[in-house]
Amino acid sequence: MTTPLADALARIVGKRWVRSQPAELATYAADGLPTHEAVPGLVVLPATKHEVAAVLRLLHLLEVPFVARGAGTGLSGGALAEAPAVLVTLTRMNRILRLCADSRRAVVEPGVINAKLSEAAAPLGLHYVPDPSSQTACTIGGNVAENAGGPHCLKYGVTTNHVTQVEVLLADGSSVVLGSPQGEPWGPDLVGLFVGSEGMFGIAVEITVRLEPIPRTIRTVFADFMALRAASEAVSAIIASGIVPAALEMMDQSCVIAVEQSIYATGARTDAAAVLLVELDGSDAAVAAETQVVEALLRTHGAREVRSATAPADRARLWQGRKKAFGALGRIAPDLAVQDAVVPRSVLPMILDRIAGIRDRLGLQISNVFHAGDGNLHPCISFDRRAPGEADRVEEASREIMEACLAAGGSVTGEHGVGSDKRDYMPLAFTAPTLALMCDVRRAFDPEARANPGKVVPVHLCREWRRGGEA
Amino acid sequence: MTTPLADALARIVGKRWVRSQPAELATYAADGLPTHEAVPGLVVLPATKHEVAAVLRLLHLLEVPFVARGAGTGLSGGALAEAPAVLVTLTRMNRILRLCADSRRAVVEPGVINAKLSEAAAPLGLHYVPDPSSQTACTIGGNVAENAGGPHCLKYGVTTNHVTQVEVLLADGSSVVLGSPQGEPWGPDLVGLFVGSEGMFGIAVEITVRLEPIPRTIRTVFADFMALRAASEAVSAIIASGIVPAALEMMDQSCVIAVEQSIYATGARTDAAAVLLVELDGSDAAVAAETQVVEALLRTHGAREVRSATAPADRARLWQGRKKAFGALGRIAPDLAVQDAVVPRSVLPMILDRIAGIRDRLGLQISNVFHAGDGNLHPCISFDRRAPGEADRVEEASREIMEACLAAGGSVTGEHGVGSDKRDYMPLAFTAPTLALMCDVRRAFDPEARANPGKVVPVHLCREWRRGGEA
Repeated sequence: MTTPLADALARIVGKRWVRSQPAELATYAADGLPTHEAVPGLVVLPATKHEVAAVLRLLHLLEVPFVARGAGTGLSGGALAEAPAVLVTLTRMNRILRLCADSRRAVVEPGVINAKLSEAAAPLGLHYVPDPSSQTACTIGGNVAENAGGPHCLKYGVTTNHVTQVEVLLADGSSVVLGSPQGEPWGPDLVGLFVGSEGMFGIAVEITVRLEPIPRTIRTVFADFMALRAASEAVSAIIASGIVPAALEMMDQSCVIAVEQSIYATGARTDAAAVLLVELDGSDAAVAAETQVVEALLRTHGAREVRSATAPADRARLWQGRKKAFGALGRIAPDLAVQDAVVPRSVLPMILDRIAGIRDRLGLQISNVFHAGDGNLHPCISFDRRAPGEADRVEEASREIMEACLAAGGSVTGEHGVGSDKRDYMPLAFTAPTLALMCDVRRAFDPEARANPGKVVPVHLCREWRRGGEA
Repeated sequence: MTTPLADALARIVGKRWVRSQPAELATYAADGLPTHEAVPGLVVLPATKHEVAAVLRLLHLLEVPFVARGAGTGLSGGALAEAPAVLVTLTRMNRILRLCADSRRAVVEPGVINAKLSEAAAPLGLHYVPDPSSQTACTIGGNVAENAGGPHCLKYGVTTNHVTQVEVLLADGSSVVLGSPQGEPWGPDLVGLFVGSEGMFGIAVEITVRLEPIPRTIRTVFADFMALRAASEAVSAIIASGIVPAALEMMDQSCVIAVEQSIYATGARTDAAAVLLVELDGSDAAVAAETQVVEALLRTHGAREVRSATAPADRARLWQGRKKAFGALGRIAPDLAVQDAVVPRSVLPMILDRIAGIRDRLGLQISNVFHAGDGNLHPCISFDRRAPGEADRVEEASREIMEACLAAGGSVTGEHGVGSDKRDYMPLAFTAPTLALMCDVRRAFDPEARANPGKVVPVHLCREWRRGGEA
C-alpha cells in the first residue's frame, strides 16, 4: 500500500524510512501508557534537520498535521498520531554534535538517548542531570517536549533548568533559534516556553543543554518502614531539616514485592510497608555530615533497617528496585497505567489512604512509587486490557485519584505532561481565559495548530473563547 | 492642569493618586539607568487589583498605552513611559497576602519590597531567595518583570525559579491566572514565559513565590588579590572544584576604592587589584569542609588576605562593600551607568582587558562589579551627563563593551533585562524570524501591543516580518 504522500516523503528520506503498512503503523499506536491508542497515517524517520524541514514544508503545503516522537516512552499519550496525521519519528537523529568541558554545554540532536549523553560526557567529569526512570531508552527531544523530571530533580530541577538553546522547526518548516548557548535571559523566555510544550510548538532539531560536574561523593541511603505514614513523616522531617537530598524516593509494599520477585531483586524485605531511598551528594565531608543527620532522622521515625553505599555498583543495586519498578510491575499483569500527580508533601499519607480506598472499591491492584521529596506520586495500576470492563475501571480509578489530588491542593501532572491522558482535566485547574491564552500562544508558533493536534488543551476551549468576553 | 483622562482615572483611584503636573511627572522620567529618559503622559497609583483592572479597561477603551512600574530601580530603562503612555505605578500594592510555612509559599502584591518579604518570612525560618543588590528598595513585581537575579542566583537560580503562579491583568483589563501554587507543569509554561517579559504581557497583580529554609550555617569568605587575572583564575578553580558557592562575587580596585572612601567602608585595603566574596551555606559540617577547600584554592591562586565570618553582623560587613557598591560609586561622579553582560567565565580576564582599553581610549572611569561565578559582569561607567559629549562617550563605551561580550560568546544582559537600553542589540543575537516570533507571542497576550510599547524588540522587526517569508 503506497500513497502519493508516502512517495513524496520517500523522495525526501528514502523509501526504507517511510512506514505505511498497517502492521508497521500498529507498532506506533501507543506510547508507554497503554490506555490510549491511535494509529498514524504514516510514519517518517528523517535523518537530519534538513530532512525534517523538507518533511514539514511538504506537510505544510498539503495541510497534513503531524506529531513528533522520540522513543515512545512517554506516559501521557502525547506522542500518538491519529490518521491522517503523520508521525515524525526522530530516533535516527541521535548524534551528539558538540561536547564542551569549558562551557559545560552539549549540543545534541533530539534522538540522543538520555543516558548516552551522560556516558559521553563522563570522560570530561561531567554529566547531564535530568534522569527520568526511562533514561536508558528515552530521548532528549522527548524530555524537552515533556519537560521531563526524574529522581534528581528534587535538588537539580527538571529539564527546563538544563536547556539553554533550542533550534526549532516550526510547522511550516522554517527555523527559529530560541535562547542562547549561555542560557542568559534575552527578551521573553521562549526556551522556557518551548520546553514542556508537548510537541505543539514545533520540532526541536538541535538542543543545547547544560552539563554539570559529577559530584565528588554520592551516598545512597536505603531504609524500610513498617508503616507508610512513618515513611512519609521521615520524608517531611528530612526536608524540614534543611538538607536538600539529590533524590528522595519512596516505594510502597506492592512495588517492593514486585521488584523482589523479579530479576531486579535487591534483597529488600517484602514485609515492609514502604522503602525510602535518600541520595546525598557533594564533598566527602558534606555528605558524611548530612548522612549522619539523615540516618538519625530515619531511625527516629521508625526505620527498621538503614543501609547505605557510596560505591557505584552498590549504589546501583540500591537504586535498581526503584529504576526498574515499572518493569517489575509488568509481572503483576500484562498492562500498567503509570499515573502522575503532585500533592503537598504534608497530605501524602491522606492521599495514599484515598488511593487505597479507590483500589479496594474498584478491585484493582495499585502500586505506588513516589518522588516523595517533592510530593510527586506515581500510582501504577496493573491491569489486563483484554479483561472485560477492566480498562474502564482503570479510567475511573485514574479520574478519582486525579480529583482527590486536585482537591488536596495538588495538580494532575508532575512530570509526564498533559498529552491525551490529562487533557480533559485541564478545565478543572484553569479558567477558560487562561486555556484560551495557551491556545493563543500556541498559534503564535503554529497558526494552523497542525503540530500535535488535539493534545493538552481541549480544542473547543480555544474556539469558543473570545478575548475580553467572559473574563 | 487636568484632562478628561486624568479625571476619569481619578474617579477610579482617587484624585491624590493621579499625577499630571510636569514637576510630578518629571520624577518618573528615569529608572536606575540615567542614560534614558521619557516623561509619561500621566501617572496613576492604584491600590488594589480591582483598581488596576478598572484602569486597564479604561485605557483599553481609549486605546492609550501604559507601562507598569515598581520602585523604578531597574537598570535597562524598562519602566519608562513616553507620553501619551500612562505609567501605572504599583508601589501602593505592597501587601503580603499569605505566608504558608507548610507549603513554603508566599502570595504577594507586586509592590512588596523584596527584602520585606524575607523579613516577614524569617519568623517561619524561611526566606525569599532572589536578592538583587537593590533588594531593600526594589519590588517583587519589578523582579518578576525583569526576571531579576542577584548574588545568590549562582546556587539558587533567578526569579523565574522561585515563582509558581501569577495572576495577570491583560491589556484589556481581563484576568488570567498562570501556573499553579505548587508550581508543577501543566501545559505550556506561561509562568516561565511571563517572568522576564518586561511588562509587555500584562500586569502581575498577585504573585505566588517559593520560600526556602534559611540555611543553617552561612560563611562569607573575603579575599583580596594583587592581580585581576589571579582573582579570575581563583574563581575558575573554585567552580572547577565542583563546589557551588551560594555566591561568588568580584569587585575591581576602582570599586574597592570608591567603597572604602564612602560611609560603607569595610576595611578592605585599597591597593588590591580585586577582591572576591565567596559565600558557602548548608549544614555546619558541609560549610566547614567547603571553607577549607575554598580558602586553600584562594591562597593557591595568590590571595593576599583571606578573612571569613559566620556571624550575621560580620557577614553583613563583608557584604556591605558589594551591596552598596553602586551607591559608593556615586562619589566618583553624579551619574552612573550600570551595564550588564555575560561572558563565559574563561574569558573574563580577556574581557576586562578589553574594557580597560575602551575606558582609556574614551577617557571614562569604569569600575567593575561581577557575579563572577556565572560570568555576569557589571561595568559601571561614572559620568556627568551635563558635561558636553560625555553621555555620547558613555553610549559609545557601552556599545563597544556589549559587542566585545557578544564576540566572546556572551550575551548583553544577564539580569537587567533588555528594556530600552539593549533593544537595538537584539538583532545582533537573534534572527528576524526569532524576533518576529517574540512579537507574535507578545500579541497572544496583548494584540494591540499597548503594554510597555517600544521595549525589548525593535518594532519594525515585528511589522516587517511575514511568516515563512525570509526564513
